[in-house]
Amino acid sequence: MNPEPAPLDRVFHALADPARRTMLERLTRGPASVSELAQPLAMSLPAVVQHLAVLEDSGLVRSEKIGRVRTCQIEAGSLQRAEQWINDRRIAWERRLDRLGDYLARQSQDEGEDR
Amino acid sequence: MNPEPAPLDRVFHALADPARRTMLERLTRGPASVSELAQPLAMSLPAVVQHLAVLEDSGLVRSEKIGRVRTCQIEAGSLQRAEQWINDRRIAWERRLDRLGDYLARQSQDEGEDR
Repeated sequence: MNPEPAPLDRVFHALADPARRTMLERLTRGPASVSELAQPLAMSLPAVVQHLAVLEDSGLVRSEKIGRVRTCQIEAGSLQRAEQWINDRRIAWERRLDRLGDYLARQSQDEGEDR
Repeated sequence: MNPEPAPLDRVFHALADPARRTMLERLTRGPASVSELAQPLAMSLPAVVQHLAVLEDSGLVRSEKIGRVRTCQIEAGSLQRAEQWINDRRIAWERRLDRLGDYLARQSQDEGEDR
C-alpha cells in the first residue's frame, strides 16, 4: 500500500459537503467576501466561517483579510490533484475494459477459425 | 443555491479515506474478493467490510456473493460523476482566468495606444 499524502483526504472531505461545493462554485466566478459566499446559503455566518475553515484546511481556498473584509479565492492546484487522482483510476479501469474487449474479440476470432 | 444530489456527498466522502482509495485502486485492476481487498491494508477484515459498505453506499463499488465468496467490482459511473463535477469547476475557473488575461492584455494595448 502506497501511503498517500493526507491532503487528498482533506480535499475529498471538503468536497463532500453541498454547502462547501456551493462556496467553491461561487469562487470559480472570482474572489468573494465571506458574506458574498454566505448569501446563497441558508445558514448563519459562523457556520459559513466553519465551512470556509475546512476549505482552507484542504488547500482548495485561501483567504486574506484586508481591512475589515476577508476575501476568499480558489486555489486551483488542490482541485486539480483531486481530479487527477480520479482520472488516473478511471483510465486504469477503462484500459482494463479495453484489454478485456480485445481478449474476447481474439477468442471469438479463434473460435471462428477453428470451425 | 441549487440543491445537489446527495450521491455526490457520499462519493466524495468515500474518496476521503486512504484505505478506501487503496481498495478502489485495487478494483481498477479487476474484480476482487473482500480478502484480496484487505490484503494490502493493515486492518482487520471487519474494518475492511465497513469501508466496503461506505464504498457500496456511495455507488463506487458493487459486490455480489456467489457461494461463500463476495466479489467486488468498481462502478465507473459514480467515479465519472465526481470527476465531472471537479472538471466543470476547474474549467469555469480557467475560463475566468482567460477572460481576465484578455482584459489585461486589452488594457495594456489601450495604454500603449494612448501614449
